[in-house]
Amino acid sequence: MTEPIGPVDASVTPRYAGIATFARLPRIEDVPDADIAVVGIPFDAGVSYRPGARFGPSHVRESSRLLRPYNPAQDVSPFAEAQVVDAGDVAANPFDIEDAVAAIEVAATDLGSRVDRIVTVGGDHTIALPLLRAVVKKHGPVAVLHFDAHLDTWDTYFGAPVTHGTPFRRASEEGLIDLTASCHVGTRGPLYSKQDLVDDERLGFSIVSSVDIEERGIEAAIARVRRRIGDRPLYISIDIDVLDPAHAPGTGTPEAGGMTSRELLRMLRALSEHHVVGADVVEVSPAYDHAQVTGIAASHVVYELVTLMAAQIGAARGR
Amino acid sequence: MTEPIGPVDASVTPRYAGIATFARLPRIEDVPDADIAVVGIPFDAGVSYRPGARFGPSHVRESSRLLRPYNPAQDVSPFAEAQVVDAGDVAANPFDIEDAVAAIEVAATDLGSRVDRIVTVGGDHTIALPLLRAVVKKHGPVAVLHFDAHLDTWDTYFGAPVTHGTPFRRASEEGLIDLTASCHVGTRGPLYSKQDLVDDERLGFSIVSSVDIEERGIEAAIARVRRRIGDRPLYISIDIDVLDPAHAPGTGTPEAGGMTSRELLRMLRALSEHHVVGADVVEVSPAYDHAQVTGIAASHVVYELVTLMAAQIGAARGR
Amino acid sequence: MTEPIGPVDASVTPRYAGIATFARLPRIEDVPDADIAVVGIPFDAGVSYRPGARFGPSHVRESSRLLRPYNPAQDVSPFAEAQVVDAGDVAANPFDIEDAVAAIEVAATDLGSRVDRIVTVGGDHTIALPLLRAVVKKHGPVAVLHFDAHLDTWDTYFGAPVTHGTPFRRASEEGLIDLTASCHVGTRGPLYSKQDLVDDERLGFSIVSSVDIEERGIEAAIARVRRRIGDRPLYISIDIDVLDPAHAPGTGTPEAGGMTSRELLRMLRALSEHHVVGADVVEVSPAYDHAQVTGIAASHVVYELVTLMAAQIGAARGR
Amino acid sequence: MTEPIGPVDASVTPRYAGIATFARLPRIEDVPDADIAVVGIPFDAGVSYRPGARFGPSHVRESSRLLRPYNPAQDVSPFAEAQVVDAGDVAANPFDIEDAVAAIEVAATDLGSRVDRIVTVGGDHTIALPLLRAVVKKHGPVAVLHFDAHLDTWDTYFGAPVTHGTPFRRASEEGLIDLTASCHVGTRGPLYSKQDLVDDERLGFSIVSSVDIEERGIEAAIARVRRRIGDRPLYISIDIDVLDPAHAPGTGTPEAGGMTSRELLRMLRALSEHHVVGADVVEVSPAYDHAQVTGIAASHVVYELVTLMAAQIGAARGR
Amino acid sequence: MTEPIGPVDASVTPRYAGIATFARLPRIEDVPDADIAVVGIPFDAGVSYRPGARFGPSHVRESSRLLRPYNPAQDVSPFAEAQVVDAGDVAANPFDIEDAVAAIEVAATDLGSRVDRIVTVGGDHTIALPLLRAVVKKHGPVAVLHFDAHLDTWDTYFGAPVTHGTPFRRASEEGLIDLTASCHVGTRGPLYSKQDLVDDERLGFSIVSSVDIEERGIEAAIARVRRRIGDRPLYISIDIDVLDPAHAPGTGTPEAGGMTSRELLRMLRALSEHHVVGADVVEVSPAYDHAQVTGIAASHVVYELVTLMAAQIGAARGR
Amino acid sequence: MTEPIGPVDASVTPRYAGIATFARLPRIEDVPDADIAVVGIPFDAGVSYRPGARFGPSHVRESSRLLRPYNPAQDVSPFAEAQVVDAGDVAANPFDIEDAVAAIEVAATDLGSRVDRIVTVGGDHTIALPLLRAVVKKHGPVAVLHFDAHLDTWDTYFGAPVTHGTPFRRASEEGLIDLTASCHVGTRGPLYSKQDLVDDERLGFSIVSSVDIEERGIEAAIARVRRRIGDRPLYISIDIDVLDPAHAPGTGTPEAGGMTSRELLRMLRALSEHHVVGADVVEVSPAYDHAQVTGIAASHVVYELVTLMAAQIGAARGR
Repeated sequence: MTEPIGPVDASVTPRYAGIATFARLPRIEDVPDADIAVVGIPFDAGVSYRPGARFGPSHVRESSRLLRPYNPAQDVSPFAEAQVVDAGDVAANPFDIEDAVAAIEVAATDLGSRVDRIVTVGGDHTIALPLLRAVVKKHGPVAVLHFDAHLDTWDTYFGAPVTHGTPFRRASEEGLIDLTASCHVGTRGPLYSKQDLVDDERLGFSIVSSVDIEERGIEAAIARVRRRIGDRPLYISIDIDVLDPAHAPGTGTPEAGGMTSRELLRMLRALSEHHVVGADVVEVSPAYDHAQVTGIAASHVVYELVTLMAAQIGAARGR
Repeated sequence: MTEPIGPVDASVTPRYAGIATFARLPRIEDVPDADIAVVGIPFDAGVSYRPGARFGPSHVRESSRLLRPYNPAQDVSPFAEAQVVDAGDVAANPFDIEDAVAAIEVAATDLGSRVDRIVTVGGDHTIALPLLRAVVKKHGPVAVLHFDAHLDTWDTYFGAPVTHGTPFRRASEEGLIDLTASCHVGTRGPLYSKQDLVDDERLGFSIVSSVDIEERGIEAAIARVRRRIGDRPLYISIDIDVLDPAHAPGTGTPEAGGMTSRELLRMLRALSEHHVVGADVVEVSPAYDHAQVTGIAASHVVYELVTLMAAQIGAARGR
Repeated sequence: MTEPIGPVDASVTPRYAGIATFARLPRIEDVPDADIAVVGIPFDAGVSYRPGARFGPSHVRESSRLLRPYNPAQDVSPFAEAQVVDAGDVAANPFDIEDAVAAIEVAATDLGSRVDRIVTVGGDHTIALPLLRAVVKKHGPVAVLHFDAHLDTWDTYFGAPVTHGTPFRRASEEGLIDLTASCHVGTRGPLYSKQDLVDDERLGFSIVSSVDIEERGIEAAIARVRRRIGDRPLYISIDIDVLDPAHAPGTGTPEAGGMTSRELLRMLRALSEHHVVGADVVEVSPAYDHAQVTGIAASHVVYELVTLMAAQIGAARGR
Repeated sequence: MTEPIGPVDASVTPRYAGIATFARLPRIEDVPDADIAVVGIPFDAGVSYRPGARFGPSHVRESSRLLRPYNPAQDVSPFAEAQVVDAGDVAANPFDIEDAVAAIEVAATDLGSRVDRIVTVGGDHTIALPLLRAVVKKHGPVAVLHFDAHLDTWDTYFGAPVTHGTPFRRASEEGLIDLTASCHVGTRGPLYSKQDLVDDERLGFSIVSSVDIEERGIEAAIARVRRRIGDRPLYISIDIDVLDPAHAPGTGTPEAGGMTSRELLRMLRALSEHHVVGADVVEVSPAYDHAQVTGIAASHVVYELVTLMAAQIGAARGR
Repeated sequence: MTEPIGPVDASVTPRYAGIATFARLPRIEDVPDADIAVVGIPFDAGVSYRPGARFGPSHVRESSRLLRPYNPAQDVSPFAEAQVVDAGDVAANPFDIEDAVAAIEVAATDLGSRVDRIVTVGGDHTIALPLLRAVVKKHGPVAVLHFDAHLDTWDTYFGAPVTHGTPFRRASEEGLIDLTASCHVGTRGPLYSKQDLVDDERLGFSIVSSVDIEERGIEAAIARVRRRIGDRPLYISIDIDVLDPAHAPGTGTPEAGGMTSRELLRMLRALSEHHVVGADVVEVSPAYDHAQVTGIAASHVVYELVTLMAAQIGAARGR
Repeated sequence: MTEPIGPVDASVTPRYAGIATFARLPRIEDVPDADIAVVGIPFDAGVSYRPGARFGPSHVRESSRLLRPYNPAQDVSPFAEAQVVDAGDVAANPFDIEDAVAAIEVAATDLGSRVDRIVTVGGDHTIALPLLRAVVKKHGPVAVLHFDAHLDTWDTYFGAPVTHGTPFRRASEEGLIDLTASCHVGTRGPLYSKQDLVDDERLGFSIVSSVDIEERGIEAAIARVRRRIGDRPLYISIDIDVLDPAHAPGTGTPEAGGMTSRELLRMLRALSEHHVVGADVVEVSPAYDHAQVTGIAASHVVYELVTLMAAQIGAARGR
């Protein structure tokens, strides 16, 4: 078992130097084998309001240059526990959602056959559907832990069944989701009607809303979430708009009253005992970001997700 | 009793399309009768520091396109409970405060005779004085619940008795305010002198400061506020600078250490049992905003205020 | 013949006040008959790079508040010569280009039957195709005067035949364009291959490039353009990226080395003797704009186009 | 005759260091005698559209840190030819135009008695009226060379006779302007009516419009301007919006199609044989600026004006 | 004992007017004696990522114009308790760290001999080393209370022993720090290795991390900090990146998950019984700030520090 | 002779997708041999005013995604004529100018031995010195064509002999420059003293200033430049601040009154008959850029330089 190849050495090459890969990690082409792949899916044709998440992957890469190798909050050195790589971007047709979704499923399935786990950087939330399809092929139905301001279980919009507002309804209908173990966290803001909540429950989700977090605190939220997901294989899908616009202005459908990045990171770190089989971080829309505030939050979120996965891989290997 | 006309249907017309009215609601000219009017007062000649709130109403309108019809946090569909409309903007003289204040009072009185309740979008805080004059004509002296970083009970500034720093002193002097039931929330930052606090108390206000909220929490603050206002007719005046600059950079006199938008929304929702007879949201200064962060916070605040009012109107009608 | 209803009176209502319509003109619903309609088409699903032009119409409306009624550069009062209105926005499906293009053609045809001439605000350049289809139904094949950094005569992109890079190839193939009288102005930047220019010529366009303008001057460019279009019915299609990024940062595919807004306005004013039957201004992407620089340039361009049309209508009526 | 005290030495104190004065020059309090004063008037209550010019003086000071002592374009070392100082800001009432205008006149008259010549940094264009009153007391009626997108000879606005749109009408009526020698340069954009131009000519101005410059070139414009002003004492008033929004986004009433900063600087340098008795640079509104683009243009304009004055003072002294 | 000279009177001179000094206080040259000096050190050659803190002092000055004389949160009028002044900026060589550090030590020692206490505005964190050297000459080894996202106890970077990542290692090695009483607050984000924490403890610091604050609350953090520092002379060093990027985007090495400005202000106010002998606020990088959000947070932090010092000076004098 | 490997195919992978290399070209590691290398040098420790050019290379890469393979203005397909690659970034010590300059010379010499020609993206102008040293080793003394607002022939600054203001003085002193054939283009703005011009001439430069261009036009400027450089091996060094701040806000020492990007591109294209042996584009400071306006201008400039070189290489090979 060789040592993983880590990021470019910052004592030799300054952090702002070099072609941008996530956390300055090697590209997948540059290592013999990889355990965890960070991959971008620059697709935003499923967006209903402010577009631009197609530039999300490159923005998160540029915003990840400061990430260092040891994660003290989890007490893990993720890039030493596992070979983590940047797998580049999936090419997805910007003019045809169906075609793009099919291509993403193929690419994710293919990548999933080469690495143990994937963290995807979007792109808009449409991509969660093909990602779930790919992950379920490998792991069976998963508990979905979904951080978002919105439910994303709407039905259709302008006749389109697959957009950034519908991935979890489609996933539920397709049997991709464990209906007893999935959960939204951080939802808030107005809905179309009360029926949205009825439908959502029927589709398999319970809700820890932003109002719940405000009123009962993060610790209670963590406990509820952990009970809900139990020991199922866990897929974590994070729409960056779960954060308050103060923490994530660079997104497409911002809603006031969200989580802080500190709260979100805390919740993620509390999942170290759960079996995280895949994850995505979506809806980073750089044209609306400022000083990489959103990009940095997203890159830290990806880093915590990678740490969760790497710790489990490392533990399995007895590192 | 006909059904209220709601917002433009987002399944037909995308949210970013169409001439901007608040929440894509009908204009007052386009409905036979209205219960609640959202009206803009683009006036900022009373500003002592960063001007620009004259562009507040159009910015809040553009930032309100994502608001949907059902408010789950209050479990109310406000636009179904009452006919809510956009009443456009009041024309106010930018070169003469006295003239503008008189015109605003006339316009608010007139509008108040056509609708049940008004939520005003400023403009600077100067406008609270004529708004209070108009509301008091209809309801008698009111409890004022005033969210702000500042007291706004100063006396004069450069000899001007009516500016954005003085509305509540003038209102108190004119007998518009119930001196036993009014309250500032979220005040912080330096004052001119300790006498400011003495005067303020004499003028009829108690204070739940930002320091109080930080130290004792929102729940305690809500309890204090609710006790203070009791069952009086309530006017809510919200200077968006009550929010921390992280949550509301787009304002004229920002002070560090403020409330989060989540806290503010929570406090407003806690007022559902009080009789809200009028409200304003002021000091949104778009030139200093970024990615509509401030505009979205303000539009959500307006939405909560409208919901409070609509629920009461709907309840009265037995909807 | 009644007097046209002009913009909201700025001596009564300040320019920053009121719900935004183009140039503060009446909405089409608010006048009995209209001659010229400014209409928005907030559609950008045909964009290949930076999206966001879906917010173009509302941005141009907000950026047009300073426009006054008399155009000294053409010595015309356009809103007195003809009834000019804001016809709102066309609803176009953001998830299906084909569906959207069909709906735009229907809407433009319908609007074209109600008014004499239309100036459309995009939206991305995809919309020029259905707009041309509609205008040709009324006027027969037109000379197209196309201001753009790009040729927009590419064939397909990701298999899509109708995107913002292809409208004029499709239009040429459909016989919408007078192949002897059409012209690109301001093209620059790299192409895919030399064949692009060969194809373009075959499709019916001559070129006055940005290099031509730099080397030979605007006056020579105007002369060439006027000779080319001759006395055919003229459709003017202006991609705002014809301007240098200094003058129009808020666009999707910016190229260095473009025209100044002063040059563009001059060229437009030089067309007063030509028969302008329709026009569009596209690719304003507000998320990339600053201080409305692009929005103001676009709104001035629309104003000159409206002036050209209004003068001809007024002259025909003997005003 | 002692040597003037120049700017802080940049080889000792970096340009970004130190409390900001214009060009890092001494404050008026720090020298025994001064020849030329740069003074700020942070007043913008006369603005009809985007406010914020009250922050103009501090922005221009911060944007002037790069100015060095030798002006090669005029071959003059202005700070060696004359004692140039920063005279700080005039305090003007933000709530009462009349009061402010009176105070500005007093302050300018007082400062004018202490120094030979003044260059004022606004503030909005309202301030030109009291500045002209002060300069005329000293020099008699002056030729006004007025660079602006607008005529600024309107009559009243919302009943206010003195705003940023009216200074030159009032000045003409008061006999402050030599009616045979005054001139607007760079005007463009729509007007209220053709009568505006008739009134303007009657009030004593000829016009070299932006269209004239585009069509006939700067050299012809310079020749016309120089003939017009002849040998009268010359007051130069520069609204920064004479520049195109690309060159000066940070202003209140931007109009497309303006001058470049290179053209403006050239025209100013061409005035070295004229007797410049005073000058102002107004309407810099920093909240709309980016990367100090507008501030740097304004500070270079002030520098050229100071150079013109200093060269004449130095020549008179036989330096 | 004469009364201290306070800030420029805002009822005479508007807050946006006048050459910018911190809180509009007098310059050190303009008072006979001073107790507390706010001084800028515009130096950023020690930065490893985003530079620009050299513009920090001027930005904080401009952002401090709203500070008023009475601090209600501490119930102290700092500018009445002590003579507080703006001591301008220290000139530091931008091209030679060693030379700059030496010059800063000389300047701080010299200033320290003229005033009782100093609050420094950076500049990058490199400057803490010479500042500590100067303060220790006067007071002996100090407890360092260090607010930062980072430990700043790294060893070398590119062979440079003194950069913005190393001041507290060097200070510890030089014996400037009381090893039993120093503390980091707010650290978070990835490190190079676990050894960083081992080294840090050996160098004399305990840690109240951002995770600690999130999990246990501010009150517990305050208690821990106060126990740690005890009654030693206290030096407070605040890297503005201790705040979350939402609260302080304008900094050089931002990390997600930080403190709110409200929390930081609360912690500072809790130190009123400790003997604060010096303080710095560093790493404000204005090019990344928006609407002065970071600058305002920093200026409020400086204000609280000055208040702590002034109260102690005032108390000692029996005011 | 195999066909060069060109950019990633945009008909398969959208332009916004994929890890950013210049123009989406292959990395030097990914091709067997390369003719022309685009290399970044993210170094800005030599900056005297606004820093940040260390982020220039990554910004130019991100801004170059729209570049297509055929350059119609030169009628050349540069990536077909020669193998062009992205050689990544040179690691340069941010804390020690001397060390960095030595490392850059080594890296440039080494890269120069692997490829025929290099275009460097800075970084600040300091890097021109080691780049010239490397190029002169290969080609002997070169004619330097230097586009810049500044002379960059100053002597020392704060005792430092090698900064971004001195490269061409040092180069001249070291005999790297052909004193009869070098030229500045676009200089403007104030200098320290007239002696600067005397020194500059002695050091071997003639000047085509921005004033010259404004007064005599680009064509005359091109003729002068071409006469001056004659048939010497030519090194082109372009400080992006040669452009007006309207065209290049994202730079460190902006001066009003500069060139347009259209003029600069025209001048470069006019050099196709000269023997361009190396080139750099420096001083892009992204924190001050907006919407990639500066980055796009810089990437187009690099593209024209690469085209000049590729055409000559292709011609030599008889392609």
